[in-house]
Amino acid sequence: MDEVKYVSGETRLYAIVGHPIQQVRSPEMVTAELVKRGHNAVLIPIDVLPADFERTLAGLMRVQNLDGLIFTIPFKRSALSLAHELGAQARQVGAINAMTQDRRGKWVGDIFDGIGCVEAFRRHNLEFKGRRVMLIGAGGAGRAIGVAIAHQGPSSIRIYDIDEQRAVDLARTIASVDPKISAVVGTPDVGNVDFLLNASPVGMLSDPRAPIEARQIPSEVVVFDAIVKPEITKLLAIAQQSGCRTILGREMMRGQIAKIVDYFERGGKTSFI
Amino acid sequence: MDEVKYVSGETRLYAIVGHPIQQVRSPEMVTAELVKRGHNAVLIPIDVLPADFERTLAGLMRVQNLDGLIFTIPFKRSALSLAHELGAQARQVGAINAMTQDRRGKWVGDIFDGIGCVEAFRRHNLEFKGRRVMLIGAGGAGRAIGVAIAHQGPSSIRIYDIDEQRAVDLARTIASVDPKISAVVGTPDVGNVDFLLNASPVGMLSDPRAPIEARQIPSEVVVFDAIVKPEITKLLAIAQQSGCRTILGREMMRGQIAKIVDYFERGGKTSFI
Repeated sequence: MDEVKYVSGETRLYAIVGHPIQQVRSPEMVTAELVKRGHNAVLIPIDVLPADFERTLAGLMRVQNLDGLIFTIPFKRSALSLAHELGAQARQVGAINAMTQDRRGKWVGDIFDGIGCVEAFRRHNLEFKGRRVMLIGAGGAGRAIGVAIAHQGPSSIRIYDIDEQRAVDLARTIASVDPKISAVVGTPDVGNVDFLLNASPVGMLSDPRAPIEARQIPSEVVVFDAIVKPEITKLLAIAQQSGCRTILGREMMRGQIAKIVDYFERGGKTSFI
Repeated sequence: MDEVKYVSGETRLYAIVGHPIQQVRSPEMVTAELVKRGHNAVLIPIDVLPADFERTLAGLMRVQNLDGLIFTIPFKRSALSLAHELGAQARQVGAINAMTQDRRGKWVGDIFDGIGCVEAFRRHNLEFKGRRVMLIGAGGAGRAIGVAIAHQGPSSIRIYDIDEQRAVDLARTIASVDPKISAVVGTPDVGNVDFLLNASPVGMLSDPRAPIEARQIPSEVVVFDAIVKPEITKLLAIAQQSGCRTILGREMMRGQIAKIVDYFERGGKTSFI
Protein backbone atom coordinates (compact mmCIF):
# COMPACT_ATOMS: atom_id res chain seq x y z
CA MET A 1 0.00 0.00 0.00
CA ASP A 2 1.36 3.36 -0.98
CA GLU A 3 1.27 6.09 1.57
CA VAL A 4 0.31 9.68 0.92
CA LYS A 5 2.51 12.60 1.81
CA TYR A 6 -0.14 15.24 2.33
CA VAL A 7 -1.83 14.07 5.47
CA SER A 8 -0.46 12.39 8.58
CA GLY A 9 -1.17 12.18 12.29
CA GLU A 10 0.78 15.41 12.71
CA THR A 11 -1.24 17.39 10.16
CA ARG A 12 -2.81 20.55 11.55
CA LEU A 13 -6.37 21.19 10.44
CA TYR A 14 -8.20 24.19 9.05
CA ALA A 15 -11.77 24.01 7.79
CA ILE A 16 -14.19 25.98 5.68
CA VAL A 17 -17.73 25.68 7.01
CA GLY A 18 -20.72 26.30 4.74
CA HIS A 19 -23.85 24.84 3.18
CA PRO A 20 -23.65 23.77 0.44
CA ILE A 21 -19.88 23.27 0.31
CA GLN A 22 -19.03 21.54 -2.99
CA GLN A 23 -18.45 24.81 -4.84
CA VAL A 24 -15.85 26.34 -2.51
CA ARG A 25 -12.28 26.82 -3.71
CA SER A 26 -10.61 27.39 -0.33
CA PRO A 27 -9.64 23.74 0.18
CA GLU A 28 -7.32 23.80 -2.84
CA MET A 29 -6.21 27.40 -2.57
CA VAL A 30 -5.66 27.77 1.19
CA THR A 31 -4.06 24.35 1.46
CA ALA A 32 -1.66 25.28 -1.35
CA GLU A 33 -0.77 28.51 0.48
CA LEU A 34 -0.26 26.69 3.80
CA VAL A 35 1.93 24.05 2.17
CA LYS A 36 3.90 26.70 0.25
CA ARG A 37 4.66 28.35 3.59
CA GLY A 38 6.00 25.08 4.98
CA HIS A 39 3.10 23.92 7.14
CA ASN A 40 1.96 20.31 7.49
CA ALA A 41 -1.63 21.43 7.27
CA VAL A 42 -4.77 20.99 5.21
CA LEU A 43 -7.98 22.98 4.87
CA ILE A 44 -10.96 20.67 4.62
CA PRO A 45 -14.54 21.39 3.52
CA ILE A 46 -17.21 20.99 6.22
CA ASP A 47 -20.82 20.87 5.09
CA VAL A 48 -23.14 21.75 7.98
CA LEU A 49 -26.90 22.17 7.87
CA PRO A 50 -27.97 25.53 9.32
CA ALA A 51 -29.91 23.75 12.09
CA ASP A 52 -26.70 21.96 13.14
CA PHE A 53 -24.40 24.98 12.99
CA GLU A 54 -24.10 25.74 16.71
CA ARG A 55 -23.78 22.15 17.82
CA THR A 56 -21.21 21.23 15.19
CA LEU A 57 -19.13 24.35 15.73
CA ALA A 58 -19.13 23.83 19.50
CA GLY A 59 -17.57 20.45 18.79
CA LEU A 60 -15.13 21.59 16.11
CA MET A 61 -13.84 24.45 18.24
CA ARG A 62 -12.68 21.87 20.83
CA VAL A 63 -10.61 19.84 18.35
CA GLN A 64 -7.04 20.18 19.58
CA ASN A 65 -5.34 20.08 16.19
CA LEU A 66 -7.77 22.48 14.49
CA ASP A 67 -6.15 25.89 14.19
CA GLY A 68 -8.54 27.96 12.12
CA LEU A 69 -11.95 28.19 10.51
CA ILE A 70 -13.27 29.96 7.45
CA PHE A 71 -16.99 30.64 7.14
CA THR A 72 -18.93 30.95 3.94
CA ILE A 73 -22.60 31.15 2.94
CA PRO A 74 -24.87 31.06 4.95
CA PHE A 75 -22.80 31.34 8.14
CA LYS A 76 -20.82 34.61 8.01
CA ARG A 77 -23.27 36.40 10.29
CA SER A 78 -24.06 33.55 12.66
CA ALA A 79 -20.34 32.87 13.12
CA LEU A 80 -19.94 36.33 14.62
CA SER A 81 -21.26 35.15 17.99
CA LEU A 82 -18.77 32.26 18.16
CA ALA A 83 -15.72 34.50 18.45
CA HIS A 84 -14.55 35.60 21.88
CA GLU A 85 -13.03 38.69 20.30
CA LEU A 86 -13.69 40.50 17.05
CA GLY A 87 -11.53 42.66 14.83
CA ALA A 88 -12.66 46.21 14.09
CA GLN A 89 -13.85 45.40 10.56
CA ALA A 90 -15.82 42.36 11.74
CA ARG A 91 -17.70 44.60 14.20
CA GLN A 92 -18.32 47.25 11.56
CA VAL A 93 -19.45 44.75 8.91
CA GLY A 94 -21.40 42.57 11.34
CA ALA A 95 -19.95 39.31 10.06
CA ILE A 96 -16.76 37.24 10.12
CA ASN A 97 -15.30 34.84 7.63
CA ALA A 98 -12.20 33.68 9.51
CA MET A 99 -11.52 32.65 13.08
CA THR A 100 -8.39 31.38 14.82
CA GLN A 101 -7.06 30.94 18.33
CA ASP A 102 -4.76 33.50 19.88
CA ARG A 103 -1.91 32.61 22.21
CA ARG A 104 -4.24 32.51 25.21
CA GLY A 105 -6.51 30.00 23.44
CA LYS A 106 -9.28 32.50 22.76
CA TRP A 107 -11.05 32.39 19.42
CA VAL A 108 -10.71 35.65 17.53
CA GLY A 109 -12.59 36.47 14.35
CA ASP A 110 -12.43 38.94 11.53
CA ILE A 111 -13.69 39.46 7.98
CA PHE A 112 -11.35 39.38 5.00
CA ASP A 113 -13.54 39.73 1.90
CA GLY A 114 -12.96 43.46 1.71
CA ILE A 115 -9.34 43.18 2.71
CA GLY A 116 -8.88 40.79 -0.21
CA CYS A 117 -10.18 43.48 -2.56
CA VAL A 118 -7.81 46.12 -1.11
CA GLU A 119 -4.93 43.63 -1.39
CA ALA A 120 -5.79 42.86 -5.03
CA PHE A 121 -5.55 46.58 -5.83
CA ARG A 122 -2.31 46.89 -3.85
CA ARG A 123 -0.78 44.12 -5.96
CA HIS A 124 -1.48 46.35 -8.97
CA ASN A 125 0.26 49.20 -7.09
CA LEU A 126 -3.09 50.92 -6.69
CA GLU A 127 -4.11 52.58 -3.43
CA PHE A 128 -7.56 53.70 -2.34
CA LYS A 129 -6.23 56.68 -0.41
CA GLY A 130 -7.68 59.91 -1.83
CA ARG A 131 -9.57 58.06 -4.59
CA ARG A 132 -13.18 58.36 -5.72
CA VAL A 133 -14.90 54.98 -5.56
CA MET A 134 -18.17 53.80 -7.09
CA LEU A 135 -19.36 50.64 -5.31
CA ILE A 136 -22.24 48.63 -6.75
CA GLY A 137 -23.72 46.18 -4.25
CA ALA A 138 -24.01 46.65 -0.47
CA GLY A 139 -24.91 43.09 0.52
CA GLY A 140 -22.50 40.76 2.33
CA ALA A 141 -19.54 41.20 -0.02
CA GLY A 142 -20.25 44.85 -0.76
CA ARG A 143 -20.50 45.74 2.89
CA ALA A 144 -17.16 44.06 3.65
CA ILE A 145 -15.53 45.79 0.68
CA GLY A 146 -16.99 49.18 1.63
CA VAL A 147 -15.71 48.93 5.19
CA ALA A 148 -12.25 47.72 4.13
CA ILE A 149 -11.94 50.57 1.63
CA ALA A 150 -13.11 53.07 4.27
CA HIS A 151 -10.08 52.10 6.36
CA GLN A 152 -7.85 53.16 3.45
CA GLY A 153 -8.98 56.80 3.42
CA PRO A 154 -10.58 57.30 -0.01
CA SER A 155 -11.99 60.78 -0.72
CA SER A 156 -15.44 59.48 -1.64
CA ILE A 157 -17.52 56.32 -1.91
CA ARG A 158 -20.73 56.34 -3.89
CA ILE A 159 -22.87 53.30 -3.15
CA TYR A 160 -25.66 51.69 -5.13
CA ASP A 161 -27.76 48.72 -4.14
CA ILE A 162 -31.06 47.49 -5.54
CA ASP A 163 -32.16 47.51 -1.89
CA GLU A 164 -31.63 51.17 -1.07
CA GLN A 165 -31.71 50.61 2.68
CA ARG A 166 -28.60 48.47 2.47
CA ALA A 167 -26.81 51.24 0.59
CA VAL A 168 -27.89 53.78 3.22
CA ASP A 169 -26.74 51.50 6.05
CA LEU A 170 -23.34 51.01 4.46
CA ALA A 171 -22.91 54.73 3.83
CA ARG A 172 -23.65 55.35 7.50
CA THR A 173 -21.16 52.70 8.60
CA ILE A 174 -18.47 54.15 6.33
CA ALA A 175 -19.07 57.61 7.79
CA SER A 176 -18.63 56.15 11.27
CA VAL A 177 -15.33 54.52 10.26
CA ASP A 178 -13.95 57.76 8.82
CA PRO A 179 -16.10 60.92 8.82
CA LYS A 180 -13.75 62.59 6.31
CA ILE A 181 -14.97 60.25 3.54
CA SER A 182 -17.87 61.50 1.43
CA ALA A 183 -20.12 58.44 1.61
CA VAL A 184 -23.23 58.87 -0.51
CA VAL A 185 -25.96 56.71 -1.99
CA GLY A 186 -26.64 57.02 -5.71
CA THR A 187 -27.19 55.23 -8.99
CA PRO A 188 -24.28 53.54 -10.79
CA ASP A 189 -22.14 56.22 -12.41
CA VAL A 190 -18.94 55.78 -14.40
CA GLY A 191 -18.13 59.51 -14.48
CA ASN A 192 -16.09 61.27 -11.81
CA VAL A 193 -14.77 58.02 -10.33
CA ASP A 194 -11.32 56.48 -10.19
CA PHE A 195 -12.33 52.95 -9.23
CA LEU A 196 -15.56 51.20 -10.26
CA LEU A 197 -16.31 48.13 -8.15
CA ASN A 198 -19.02 45.55 -8.61
CA ALA A 199 -19.93 43.54 -5.50
CA SER A 200 -23.45 42.72 -6.64
CA PRO A 201 -24.38 39.31 -8.09
CA VAL A 202 -25.29 40.86 -11.47
CA GLY A 203 -23.20 39.06 -14.09
CA MET A 204 -22.63 35.90 -12.09
CA LEU A 205 -22.53 32.48 -13.79
CA SER A 206 -24.83 32.56 -16.83
CA ASP A 207 -26.24 36.04 -16.07
CA PRO A 208 -25.31 38.05 -19.22
CA ARG A 209 -26.07 41.47 -17.69
CA ALA A 210 -23.75 44.21 -16.53
CA PRO A 211 -24.56 46.14 -13.33
CA ILE A 212 -24.20 49.45 -15.23
CA GLU A 213 -26.13 50.82 -18.18
CA ALA A 214 -23.17 52.53 -19.84
CA ARG A 215 -21.61 50.65 -22.80
CA GLN A 216 -18.46 52.72 -22.46
CA ILE A 217 -16.32 53.53 -19.40
CA PRO A 218 -13.67 56.29 -19.32
CA SER A 219 -10.37 54.52 -19.94
CA GLU A 220 -8.70 55.97 -16.83
CA VAL A 221 -11.19 54.18 -14.53
CA VAL A 222 -9.95 50.97 -12.93
CA VAL A 223 -12.74 48.37 -12.95
CA PHE A 224 -13.03 45.55 -10.46
CA ASP A 225 -15.59 42.75 -10.28
CA ALA A 226 -15.88 40.54 -7.18
CA ILE A 227 -17.50 37.77 -9.24
CA VAL A 228 -15.25 34.74 -9.65
CA LYS A 229 -17.28 32.82 -12.23
CA PRO A 230 -17.17 33.80 -15.02
CA GLU A 231 -13.67 35.21 -14.76
CA ILE A 232 -14.53 37.95 -17.28
CA THR A 233 -18.01 39.24 -16.52
CA LYS A 234 -19.97 41.46 -18.88
CA LEU A 235 -18.81 44.46 -16.80
CA LEU A 236 -15.16 43.49 -17.19
CA ALA A 237 -15.66 42.89 -20.92
CA ILE A 238 -17.06 46.43 -21.32
CA ALA A 239 -14.13 47.76 -19.25
CA GLN A 240 -11.58 45.95 -21.40
CA GLN A 241 -13.23 47.17 -24.61
CA SER A 242 -13.09 50.70 -23.15
CA GLY A 243 -9.35 50.36 -22.51
CA CYS A 244 -9.69 50.29 -18.70
CA ARG A 245 -7.43 48.37 -16.35
CA THR A 246 -9.35 45.47 -14.81
CA ILE A 247 -8.99 43.52 -11.58
CA LEU A 248 -10.69 40.14 -11.34
CA GLY A 249 -12.62 38.41 -8.58
CA ARG A 250 -9.99 35.71 -8.56
CA GLU A 251 -7.39 38.31 -7.58
CA MET A 252 -9.52 39.37 -4.62
CA MET A 253 -9.78 35.73 -3.60
CA ARG A 254 -5.99 35.30 -3.79
CA GLY A 255 -5.42 38.48 -1.83
CA GLN A 256 -7.89 37.36 0.78
CA ILE A 257 -6.35 33.93 1.12
CA ALA A 258 -2.90 35.40 1.69
CA LYS A 259 -4.30 37.68 4.40
CA ILE A 260 -6.26 34.88 6.07
CA VAL A 261 -3.20 32.64 6.18
CA ASP A 262 -1.21 35.54 7.68
CA TYR A 263 -3.97 35.81 10.31
CA PHE A 264 -3.83 32.07 11.03
CA GLU A 265 -0.03 32.17 11.31
CA ARG A 266 -0.07 35.15 13.64
CA GLY A 267 -2.70 33.76 16.00
CA GLY A 268 -5.32 36.29 15.03
CA LYS A 269 -3.13 39.35 14.75
CA THR A 270 -4.54 41.17 11.74
CA SER A 271 -2.00 42.49 9.25
CA PHE A 272 -4.16 44.95 7.40
CA ILE A 273 -2.56 46.81 4.58
CA MET B 1 -0.83 30.29 -6.54
CA ASP B 2 -0.66 26.60 -7.26
CA GLU B 3 -3.66 24.53 -6.43
CA VAL B 4 -3.60 21.15 -4.80
CA LYS B 5 -5.27 18.11 -6.26
CA TYR B 6 -5.93 16.19 -3.09
CA VAL B 7 -8.60 18.27 -1.43
CA SER B 8 -11.48 20.27 -2.89
CA GLY B 9 -14.97 21.38 -1.96
CA GLU B 10 -16.21 17.99 -3.17
CA THR B 11 -13.86 15.94 -0.98
CA ARG B 12 -15.62 13.46 1.29
CA LEU B 13 -14.24 13.29 4.82
CA TYR B 14 -13.22 10.46 7.10
CA ALA B 15 -11.55 11.04 10.45
CA ILE B 16 -9.57 9.16 13.06
CA VAL B 17 -10.39 10.37 16.55
CA GLY B 18 -7.95 9.87 19.42
CA HIS B 19 -5.81 11.54 22.04
CA PRO B 20 -2.95 11.98 21.43
CA ILE B 21 -3.17 11.72 17.65
CA GLN B 22 0.27 12.55 16.20
CA GLN B 23 1.41 8.92 16.16
CA VAL B 24 -1.44 7.45 14.12
CA ARG B 25 -0.78 6.08 10.64
CA SER B 26 -4.37 5.90 9.39
CA PRO B 27 -4.33 9.34 7.72
CA GLU B 28 -1.64 8.25 5.25
CA MET B 29 -2.71 4.63 4.93
CA VAL B 30 -6.50 4.94 4.77
CA THR B 31 -6.32 7.99 2.52
CA ALA B 32 -4.04 6.08 0.14
CA GLU B 33 -6.50 3.18 0.08
CA LEU B 34 -9.48 5.51 -0.52
CA VAL B 35 -7.65 7.31 -3.33
CA LYS B 36 -6.50 4.01 -4.85
CA ARG B 37 -10.15 2.95 -4.99
CA GLY B 38 -11.06 6.13 -6.87
CA HIS B 39 -12.62 8.22 -4.11
CA ASN B 40 -12.18 11.99 -3.73
CA ALA B 41 -11.74 11.53 0.02
CA VAL B 42 -9.27 12.12 2.81
CA LEU B 43 -8.95 10.71 6.32
CA ILE B 44 -7.94 13.44 8.74
CA PRO B 45 -6.58 13.19 12.29
CA ILE B 46 -8.83 14.63 15.02
CA ASP B 47 -7.29 15.17 18.43
CA VAL B 48 -10.00 15.35 21.11
CA LEU B 49 -9.53 15.62 24.85
CA PRO B 50 -11.45 12.90 26.70
CA ALA B 51 -13.59 15.53 28.43
CA ASP B 52 -14.66 16.87 25.02
CA PHE B 53 -15.34 13.52 23.38
CA GLU B 54 -19.14 13.47 23.53
CA ARG B 55 -19.59 17.10 22.55
CA THR B 56 -17.15 16.96 19.67
CA LEU B 57 -18.50 13.69 18.31
CA ALA B 58 -22.09 14.96 18.50
CA GLY B 59 -20.94 17.79 16.25
CA LEU B 60 -18.84 15.68 13.88
CA MET B 61 -21.59 13.13 13.38
CA ARG B 62 -23.77 15.92 11.94
CA VAL B 63 -21.21 16.98 9.29
CA GLN B 64 -22.92 16.25 5.98
CA ASN B 65 -19.77 15.34 4.03
CA LEU B 66 -18.27 13.13 6.75
CA ASP B 67 -18.79 9.49 5.85
CA GLY B 68 -16.87 7.53 8.43
CA LEU B 69 -14.95 7.61 11.71
CA ILE B 70 -12.14 5.53 13.13
CA PHE B 71 -11.53 5.50 16.87
CA THR B 72 -8.23 4.91 18.57
CA ILE B 73 -6.87 5.17 22.11
CA PRO B 74 -8.55 6.10 24.45
CA PHE B 75 -11.97 6.11 22.75
CA LYS B 76 -12.66 2.57 21.49
CA ARG B 77 -14.92 1.77 24.42
CA SER B 78 -16.63 5.14 24.78
CA ALA B 79 -17.38 5.20 21.04
CA LEU B 80 -19.54 2.09 21.49
CA SER B 81 -22.45 4.17 22.79
CA LEU B 82 -22.36 6.51 19.78
CA ALA B 83 -23.42 3.85 17.30
CA HIS B 84 -27.11 3.27 16.64
CA GLU B 85 -26.32 -0.31 15.67
CA LEU B 86 -23.39 -2.58 16.45
CA GLY B 87 -21.87 -5.52 14.61
CA ALA B 88 -21.67 -8.87 16.38
CA GLN B 89 -17.93 -8.59 17.09
CA ALA B 90 -18.31 -5.06 18.50
CA ARG B 91 -20.90 -6.34 20.98
CA GLN B 92 -18.74 -9.33 21.92
CA VAL B 93 -15.56 -7.25 22.31
CA GLY B 94 -17.30 -4.30 23.95
CA ALA B 95 -15.62 -1.69 21.75
CA ILE B 96 -15.67 -0.29 18.25
CA ASN B 97 -12.98 1.25 16.11
CA ALA B 98 -14.96 2.16 12.99
CA MET B 99 -18.32 3.76 12.40
CA THR B 100 -20.15 4.75 9.23
CA GLN B 101 -23.66 5.64 8.10
CA ASP B 102 -25.89 3.07 6.50
CA ARG B 103 -28.35 3.87 3.73
CA ARG B 104 -30.99 5.00 6.22
CA GLY B 105 -28.54 7.49 7.77
CA LYS B 106 -28.00 5.44 10.94
CA TRP B 107 -24.50 5.21 12.37
CA VAL B 108 -23.31 1.62 12.57
CA GLY B 109 -20.14 0.54 14.33
CA ASP B 110 -17.85 -2.44 14.47
CA ILE B 111 -14.35 -3.43 15.52
CA PHE B 112 -11.70 -4.40 12.99
CA ASP B 113 -8.48 -4.97 14.96
CA GLY B 114 -9.05 -8.69 15.17
CA ILE B 115 -10.40 -8.90 11.64
CA GLY B 116 -7.15 -7.31 10.46
CA CYS B 117 -5.21 -10.12 12.11
CA VAL B 118 -7.38 -12.80 10.48
CA GLU B 119 -7.00 -11.00 7.13
CA ALA B 120 -3.20 -10.86 7.52
CA PHE B 121 -3.14 -14.65 8.01
CA ARG B 122 -5.51 -15.14 5.08
CA ARG B 123 -3.12 -13.19 2.84
CA HIS B 124 -0.50 -15.84 3.75
CA ASN B 125 -3.08 -18.52 2.79
CA LEU B 126 -3.40 -19.46 6.44
CA GLU B 127 -6.76 -20.19 8.04
CA PHE B 128 -7.63 -20.40 11.72
CA LYS B 129 -10.22 -23.11 11.17
CA GLY B 130 -9.26 -26.23 13.13
CA ARG B 131 -6.01 -24.68 14.38
CA ARG B 132 -4.55 -24.53 17.89
CA VAL B 133 -3.88 -20.92 18.89
CA MET B 134 -1.78 -19.48 21.72
CA LEU B 135 -2.81 -15.86 22.35
CA ILE B 136 -0.70 -13.67 24.64
CA GLY B 137 -2.51 -10.54 25.79
CA ALA B 138 -6.23 -10.16 26.44
CA GLY B 139 -6.42 -6.34 26.66
CA GLY B 140 -8.03 -4.20 23.97
CA ALA B 141 -6.17 -5.65 20.98
CA GLY B 142 -6.04 -9.20 22.37
CA ARG B 143 -9.75 -9.24 23.08
CA ALA B 144 -10.57 -8.09 19.54
CA ILE B 145 -8.19 -10.67 18.07
CA GLY B 146 -9.55 -13.47 20.26
CA VAL B 147 -13.15 -12.74 19.24
CA ALA B 148 -12.29 -12.45 15.54
CA ILE B 149 -10.42 -15.76 15.63
CA ALA B 150 -13.30 -17.39 17.50
CA HIS B 151 -15.52 -16.59 14.50
CA GLN B 152 -13.13 -18.64 12.33
CA GLY B 153 -13.66 -21.91 14.19
CA PRO B 154 -10.22 -22.82 15.58
CA SER B 155 -10.01 -26.06 17.59
CA SER B 156 -8.46 -24.35 20.64
CA ILE B 157 -7.38 -20.97 21.98
CA ARG B 158 -5.08 -20.80 24.99
CA ILE B 159 -4.99 -17.32 26.49
CA TYR B 160 -2.43 -15.64 28.71
CA ASP B 161 -2.59 -12.19 30.22
CA ILE B 162 -0.61 -10.70 33.09
CA ASP B 163 -4.05 -9.75 34.45
CA GLU B 164 -5.60 -13.20 34.77
CA GLN B 165 -9.14 -11.87 35.02
CA ARG B 166 -8.90 -10.43 31.52
CA ALA B 167 -7.79 -13.82 30.19
CA VAL B 168 -10.70 -15.52 31.99
CA ASP B 169 -13.15 -12.97 30.61
CA LEU B 170 -11.91 -13.45 27.07
CA ALA B 171 -12.05 -17.26 27.35
CA ARG B 172 -15.65 -16.94 28.49
CA THR B 173 -16.51 -14.62 25.59
CA ILE B 174 -14.90 -17.01 23.10
CA ALA B 175 -16.89 -19.91 24.53
CA SER B 176 -20.05 -17.88 24.04
CA VAL B 177 -19.15 -17.17 20.41
CA ASP B 178 -18.52 -20.82 19.64
CA PRO B 179 -18.86 -23.46 22.38
CA LYS B 180 -17.00 -26.01 20.24
CA ILE B 181 -13.72 -24.11 20.74
CA SER B 182 -11.57 -25.21 23.66
CA ALA B 183 -10.90 -21.81 25.24
CA VAL B 184 -8.55 -22.06 28.21
CA VAL B 185 -6.38 -19.80 30.31
CA GLY B 186 -2.73 -20.71 30.74
CA THR B 187 0.86 -19.57 30.66
CA PRO B 188 2.59 -18.85 27.33
CA ASP B 189 3.40 -22.15 25.68
CA VAL B 190 5.07 -22.74 22.33
CA GLY B 191 4.33 -26.49 22.29
CA ASN B 192 1.17 -28.01 20.86
CA VAL B 193 0.19 -24.84 19.01
CA ASP B 194 -0.06 -23.99 15.33
CA PHE B 195 -0.21 -20.21 15.67
CA LEU B 196 1.49 -18.14 18.38
CA LEU B 197 0.07 -14.61 18.65
CA ASN B 198 1.32 -11.70 20.72
CA ALA B 199 -1.22 -8.99 21.43
CA SER B 200 0.48 -7.77 24.62
CA PRO B 201 2.63 -4.62 24.69
CA VAL B 202 5.73 -6.63 25.64
CA GLY B 203 8.38 -5.83 23.03
CA MET B 204 6.96 -2.49 21.96
CA LEU B 205 9.25 0.42 21.02
CA SER B 206 12.47 0.13 23.06
CA ASP B 207 11.25 -2.77 25.22
CA PRO B 208 13.82 -5.52 24.48
CA ARG B 209 11.78 -8.35 26.05
CA ALA B 210 9.87 -11.18 24.44
CA PRO B 211 6.48 -12.23 25.89
CA ILE B 212 7.67 -15.86 26.07
CA GLU B 213 10.52 -17.43 28.00
CA ALA B 214 11.48 -19.95 25.35
CA ARG B 215 14.52 -19.04 23.20
CA GLN B 216 13.42 -21.54 20.59
CA ILE B 217 10.06 -22.10 18.90
CA PRO B 218 9.15 -25.23 16.93
CA SER B 219 9.70 -24.29 13.29
CA GLU B 220 6.21 -25.35 12.20
CA VAL B 221 4.59 -22.69 14.43
CA VAL B 222 3.49 -19.51 12.67
CA VAL B 223 4.32 -16.50 14.85
CA PHE B 224 2.43 -13.20 14.74
CA ASP B 225 3.09 -10.01 16.66
CA ALA B 226 0.50 -7.19 16.73
CA ILE B 227 3.22 -4.66 17.58
CA VAL B 228 3.93 -2.25 14.72
CA LYS B 229 7.04 -0.55 16.10
CA PRO B 230 9.57 -2.09 15.98
CA GLU B 231 8.65 -4.04 12.88
CA ILE B 232 10.68 -7.04 14.09
CA THR B 233 10.12 -7.47 17.81
CA LYS B 234 12.23 -9.72 20.00
CA LEU B 235 9.52 -12.40 19.66
CA LEU B 236 9.64 -12.23 15.87
CA ALA B 237 13.45 -12.33 15.94
CA ILE B 238 13.35 -15.54 18.01
CA ALA B 239 10.75 -16.94 15.60
CA GLN B 240 12.87 -16.13 12.57
CA GLN B 241 15.97 -17.67 14.18
CA SER B 242 13.87 -20.77 14.89
CA GLY B 243 12.86 -21.02 11.22
CA CYS B 244 9.21 -20.09 11.83
CA ARG B 245 7.02 -18.18 9.40
CA THR B 246 6.27 -14.73 10.81
CA ILE B 247 3.45 -12.25 10.28
CA LEU B 248 4.04 -8.63 11.25
CA GLY B 249 1.90 -6.03 13.00
CA ARG B 250 2.07 -3.92 9.88
CA GLU B 251 0.33 -6.70 7.95
CA MET B 252 -2.51 -6.71 10.48
CA MET B 253 -2.80 -2.95 10.05
CA ARG B 254 -2.97 -3.29 6.27
CA GLY B 255 -5.55 -6.06 6.50
CA GLN B 256 -7.60 -3.98 8.89
CA ILE B 257 -7.49 -0.89 6.69
CA ALA B 258 -8.71 -2.83 3.67
CA LYS B 259 -11.61 -4.20 5.73
CA ILE B 260 -12.50 -0.80 7.21
CA VAL B 261 -12.55 0.81 3.75
CA ASP B 262 -14.78 -2.05 2.53
CA TYR B 263 -17.06 -1.24 5.47
CA PHE B 264 -17.10 2.47 4.62
CA GLU B 265 -17.84 1.72 0.96
CA ARG B 266 -20.65 -0.67 1.80
CA GLY B 267 -22.41 1.65 4.25
CA GLY B 268 -21.62 -0.48 7.26
CA LYS B 269 -22.14 -3.88 5.73
CA THR B 270 -19.39 -6.00 7.25
CA SER B 271 -17.51 -8.24 4.85
CA PHE B 272 -15.88 -10.58 7.31
CA ILE B 273 -13.68 -13.25 5.90
